[in-house]
Amino acid sequence: MRNSRRSQVDPFIVMDVMEAARAAEESGRDIIHMEVGQPGTGAPEGARQALARGMQGDPMGYTVALGLPALRKRIARLYGDWYDVDLDWNRVVVTPGSSGGFLLAFTALFDAGDRIGIGEPGYPSYRQIAKALDLVPVGLQAAAENRLQPVASDLAGMDLQGLMVASPANPSGTMLDKSAMQALVGACRDSDTAFISDEIYHGIEYEAKAVTALEVTDDCYVINSFSKYFSMTGWRVGWMVVPEDHVRVIERLAQNMFICPSHASQLAALAAMDCGEELEANMAVYRENRRLMLEGLPKAGFDKIAPPDGAFYVYADVSELTDDSRAFAAEILEKAGVAVTPGLDFDPVRGAGTLRFSYARATADIVEGLKRLERFMAERG
Amino acid sequence: MRNSRRSQVDPFIVMDVMEAARAAEESGRDIIHMEVGQPGTGAPEGARQALARGMQGDPMGYTVALGLPALRKRIARLYGDWYDVDLDWNRVVVTPGSSGGFLLAFTALFDAGDRIGIGEPGYPSYRQIAKALDLVPVGLQAAAENRLQPVASDLAGMDLQGLMVASPANPSGTMLDKSAMQALVGACRDSDTAFISDEIYHGIEYEAKAVTALEVTDDCYVINSFSKYFSMTGWRVGWMVVPEDHVRVIERLAQNMFICPSHASQLAALAAMDCGEELEANMAVYRENRRLMLEGLPKAGFDKIAPPDGAFYVYADVSELTDDSRAFAAEILEKAGVAVTPGLDFDPVRGAGTLRFSYARATADIVEGLKRLERFMAERG
Repeated sequence: MRNSRRSQVDPFIVMDVMEAARAAEESGRDIIHMEVGQPGTGAPEGARQALARGMQGDPMGYTVALGLPALRKRIARLYGDWYDVDLDWNRVVVTPGSSGGFLLAFTALFDAGDRIGIGEPGYPSYRQIAKALDLVPVGLQAAAENRLQPVASDLAGMDLQGLMVASPANPSGTMLDKSAMQALVGACRDSDTAFISDEIYHGIEYEAKAVTALEVTDDCYVINSFSKYFSMTGWRVGWMVVPEDHVRVIERLAQNMFICPSHASQLAALAAMDCGEELEANMAVYRENRRLMLEGLPKAGFDKIAPPDGAFYVYADVSELTDDSRAFAAEILEKAGVAVTPGLDFDPVRGAGTLRFSYARATADIVEGLKRLERFMAERG
Repeated sequence: MRNSRRSQVDPFIVMDVMEAARAAEESGRDIIHMEVGQPGTGAPEGARQALARGMQGDPMGYTVALGLPALRKRIARLYGDWYDVDLDWNRVVVTPGSSGGFLLAFTALFDAGDRIGIGEPGYPSYRQIAKALDLVPVGLQAAAENRLQPVASDLAGMDLQGLMVASPANPSGTMLDKSAMQALVGACRDSDTAFISDEIYHGIEYEAKAVTALEVTDDCYVINSFSKYFSMTGWRVGWMVVPEDHVRVIERLAQNMFICPSHASQLAALAAMDCGEELEANMAVYRENRRLMLEGLPKAGFDKIAPPDGAFYVYADVSELTDDSRAFAAEILEKAGVAVTPGLDFDPVRGAGTLRFSYARATADIVEGLKRLERFMAERG
């Protein structure tokens, strides 16, 4: 049997780093993990307790495709609490992670051959999922002076059917403020381009609150997840907010493509939303980690960094240090014992000159990692 | 924003039945559920205990995309135990339900416009997922004398790039024996058609053992799930076995499309595989329910039924009673208080003359349901 053309998606380059880190650990070395894009913490205690209770009674069969109504209602309430947006819960769709949201959004909105604008640097799976669905990902090279975010003028002449933005973004951590979001939404409306906003890092923000696209327009898809702020990566549960007249189409697609998100994960997610104290304790760790990174990275010599508005990443321009971020990451792992992500996964064009540092793990790891990076850079000269 | 053409998939007609049943129950009526395609039982006790233990310690973050190695190895062992097939565990891919398997298989094997042969009657989501992925589902009208399964001659002149079979099948419960499977695999090999075998109902078989396509060829995709025999529908965890040289392609697709299946569900699934006693107790219920159905349905007047080799369905030809199975199902719900599934979801051509009866629920429900059906048919005359 032969494989399809569309299945030939790029490998993740970070996987080589992770495999090398694993091998180094197996051989007895101690490695600090700054390559990993997930919290070191598990689901909140209250979430795990709620699931343990839930498993006693109910057989936990399929839920309806759009998710447990109680969870959809609770998510709608979050938009009131966080953004003062009054959201009809019927527009909320629970998904198998934000991944499930991308699959649903892309199939609901685009046909084979359609062109999707994607800000670069950006989350690599946008591009790969688009390819796997026979769409054409169009990389929009975002400029440092635009906080590495796409701007309306990037869309001109691109003949896009969709635009995918992320704020706070992975890998840069930069955000779109309200006027930047309005400008992009306006440009999309004018060119009949579907607007999709990835808001998976909302809640993990430091100096200003993240803006949801729903503050600007109802004519958009918003994708979010319990993976990051709610610390539930492995549970594979997220959500999407869609225009009212798209709900039925999404429902039919979701019935067929997923049947439903994991019932257990939905129960846990519902309870996680009331675990504010534990989640804010996680945030206190990220805040301290970020402070240490913003002090330690420049000291070590990584001083060209994107404005770290949110998420738990620092994206550094290392083009004066290397023209091969993959080899540089391997060298840092080998000599400093710190695993970092080469930028090539996020930006095929300029990523050979960038690195992503994650500070999602415990503070002690960050302290030790920064010490090692400083020593490594000093020795490298 | 407008929706894509490929998002216009058909609604499930059974949803209308389920909604009407729900409304009837809300108004105080007692309804017997023979429309539901899932066990009434939950995950085995041992699975729930294993997860409760697992949640205490590990943060349960992302697993690798192909799934926990321990689970992949345990699944490979099942092929030795059940079929005496020696399977390399590296070919086993854990998926978010069999739904995730279909999405992966279809994108890994087919490009936009490719034609997939699907036996009709069959599971409706094959057709809808194919459409959503810009593929062309080609219904193969299966004959009663072929146990409602496609045969090699159905493929001739169809210009198929893929063939999707299911044994035991939903809605019919019929199986492909080894020679029927061999004939189909041979015809696919000869015409360079990818062969995909949905084996989700394996383990739920009554008079003969189900045959896995892996007994016949390694050059196929096999899709299975923990939903049915292992009684874990809501957990959304399944698996796929692919040719050795497809594993890397599937891994990259899975990394991007799903990241991983639910970690919690994988832990529960691993433990479920050692809960043989409880699972066989479920089987004893299905066996008794089937006996009752095969006695009671003909007595009520539903006597043109497909050979119920496996699964927990009886598929009945009611074309002498109605030419509108949808209206007939509504009448049965209204007058008998029994919810059943009209055949139109499974067979757009002939389904107006068929019904699917599920016997997945408790035996007491089956006894009561059959009594009601008999009374209804007697009064209908």
